[in-house]
Amino acid sequence: MSTFHQDFSDADYHARLTRTRAEMARRGLDMLVICDPSNMHWLTGYDGWSFYVYQAVVLGMEGEPVWWGRGMDAAGAARTVFMSGADAICGYDDSYVQNPEKHPMRLLGDLVQQMGGGAGRIGVELDNYYYSAKAHQVLSEALPGAALHDATGLVNWQRAVKSETEMLYIRRAAKIVTRMHECILTFAQPGMAKNLLVAEIYRCGIEGADGQWGDYPAIVPMAPSGMDATAPHLTWDDRALIPGEATFFEIAGAHRRYHCPQSRTLFFGEPPALYRRAENAVLEATQAGLAMARPGNFCEDIANAFNAKLNALGFEKDSRCGYSIGLSYPPDWGERTMSFRRGDRTVLEPGMVFHFMPALWLEDGGLEMTETIAITETDAECLCDTPGGIFVK
Amino acid sequence: MSTFHQDFSDADYHARLTRTRAEMARRGLDMLVICDPSNMHWLTGYDGWSFYVYQAVVLGMEGEPVWWGRGMDAAGAARTVFMSGADAICGYDDSYVQNPEKHPMRLLGDLVQQMGGGAGRIGVELDNYYYSAKAHQVLSEALPGAALHDATGLVNWQRAVKSETEMLYIRRAAKIVTRMHECILTFAQPGMAKNLLVAEIYRCGIEGADGQWGDYPAIVPMAPSGMDATAPHLTWDDRALIPGEATFFEIAGAHRRYHCPQSRTLFFGEPPALYRRAENAVLEATQAGLAMARPGNFCEDIANAFNAKLNALGFEKDSRCGYSIGLSYPPDWGERTMSFRRGDRTVLEPGMVFHFMPALWLEDGGLEMTETIAITETDAECLCDTPGGIFVK
Repeated sequence: MSTFHQDFSDADYHARLTRTRAEMARRGLDMLVICDPSNMHWLTGYDGWSFYVYQAVVLGMEGEPVWWGRGMDAAGAARTVFMSGADAICGYDDSYVQNPEKHPMRLLGDLVQQMGGGAGRIGVELDNYYYSAKAHQVLSEALPGAALHDATGLVNWQRAVKSETEMLYIRRAAKIVTRMHECILTFAQPGMAKNLLVAEIYRCGIEGADGQWGDYPAIVPMAPSGMDATAPHLTWDDRALIPGEATFFEIAGAHRRYHCPQSRTLFFGEPPALYRRAENAVLEATQAGLAMARPGNFCEDIANAFNAKLNALGFEKDSRCGYSIGLSYPPDWGERTMSFRRGDRTVLEPGMVFHFMPALWLEDGGLEMTETIAITETDAECLCDTPGGIFVK
Repeated sequence: MSTFHQDFSDADYHARLTRTRAEMARRGLDMLVICDPSNMHWLTGYDGWSFYVYQAVVLGMEGEPVWWGRGMDAAGAARTVFMSGADAICGYDDSYVQNPEKHPMRLLGDLVQQMGGGAGRIGVELDNYYYSAKAHQVLSEALPGAALHDATGLVNWQRAVKSETEMLYIRRAAKIVTRMHECILTFAQPGMAKNLLVAEIYRCGIEGADGQWGDYPAIVPMAPSGMDATAPHLTWDDRALIPGEATFFEIAGAHRRYHCPQSRTLFFGEPPALYRRAENAVLEATQAGLAMARPGNFCEDIANAFNAKLNALGFEKDSRCGYSIGLSYPPDWGERTMSFRRGDRTVLEPGMVFHFMPALWLEDGGLEMTETIAITETDAECLCDTPGGIFVK
């Protein structure tokens, strides 16, 4: 009943609910209380920067899901969710916002009771940014007759295989991140203050590409240089780009909340021999990993092939080299399900999408050349056509 | 021992620790486990976009605090924290990242034990984005001899009164947001796709102002038009700006993680009479609120004066009209302590900084004209000199 543009059809949402409910049934759950904004969006279409206050989607085994959140955000829900029923949106009073005297999770408990979950088995996302220890305590107290079970990742896992429309949005994001890297090559020059370059990266990412608008990525652009690039997650300041230092750019294009991350590393002038050896090792190891990226293989097969080749060429990486991506909100563009690392025996399926992230952080700098890949019927496809290897300018 | 630029002196950090420990002593706490990235930054200087994995600062009653986090982020900690001791940074193995098989909070429990907290009273931030229900369960199990107490907001409250350096950074952020509003007035025109305008807002905000660089704000620019502006937290797409619709811009300048939010509303052509009446009511009510903004008064005095005048002029606002701000990370630029609303009887002190946020969301659109204010020795100062009232173009 919204005049807002729906990113997916009602049929898409119903298919998602069916898939989710099958897993609920398998686990014997009567109801889900979902606080992860990505999962809320995927289940209902709700999209807004309101996840700094408590909000949830409540899904029973029948009927429409219910959006629950701050009263002022009910208007945003009315404009974005697919549900049309009179009871599909439930807003709470503003005096419950960030007020130590009264916690909104008590009201969510009332809603669950009204929806018939008072004596049920309720799944909650115990290990999630937006479901705090206090939230769980208060909700548990408000539902003394219910049994709360950990359903962390239950919805995330349903998102693993992308639909055609989801792939369309990720491909648009791929065009955007490709253009962002072109923008970096155009604008970056020695002596330029880092923040001025990041300003251009932002402008380009939000402008979008191929006539498709850019959304905000769930992580800000990372662009550390030199010793700062030994650390993967430092953000920018105004220090100048200087010759002889590597700068890596870990960025993502985003469209309708779907992401396509990709990293590249830039040198002004010829990189030192160590970086050329590392570049070669990463590119060869990436090919070895990609050769294992096909339906039926495990996630760990990619990591093991990558690491074996990398080690044979004299380098080591002790962190995971990839993770699933798609729809997301801050603070992470990952889906928090599958990882490319030893021990992850998830079977690859067509339609899964990963950030293959073979970054090396060396003693005096960092090297990131990464790809977003989609598993196809036969192997894997790199979604961007950004040139590979170190960018030299 | 860092070559990185420190935003504050060691003396500043020691003063903060002293202030925090006084409150710990008052509450009988032996140790704090702090997962809020803003509080981690305020206590140690740590700054990185790594809060999508578990990390913490552990603070006992003596000695340096300890930064604890993902192994790869230890390098970022080494470059940003003020502590110099050999044991000040503790990284955990990457296999604990987003892995349902093993939870990093178990390792944090070991660290707390090593630091002598195994039988102590430990304060944790129960009601925080970055301390999940699961994190609390695992940490509690890992510390069977300790008593975990709720210390939500303990550090946030120590941040309420800003130092001179903090005020310097907020004033720089004020210059930046002022320039961002100038940029909006320059670039906005009928027919322009919203994302293209947001791209310019981003570019301007990251460029900064007066030679001071722009950091990323903890909330993305909100810029909804028309009916979308009846909802406060919808983000942009590519629909065109059109005459006759109000667009509000809720944005913040940021510098070294310190924020100065400010909102304005734009019309192409003369606004309808209702909006002019609402504008007048908000401006008069804002003045009434500001008249109560002085040391010794309560937070609620501002809200009550604002609401009384607003109601007298025929409008109502049922949500809080302000909150404290300063250092922050996504998803919220608020400090999550004081609010301008009935019942908040926090006494105003010089050096407190608030986003005075008298927004109205009407039936067919929204009106936001907000100010960031600092409490002075005698009254309150608006930190931006952006022209007031509706922007008409």
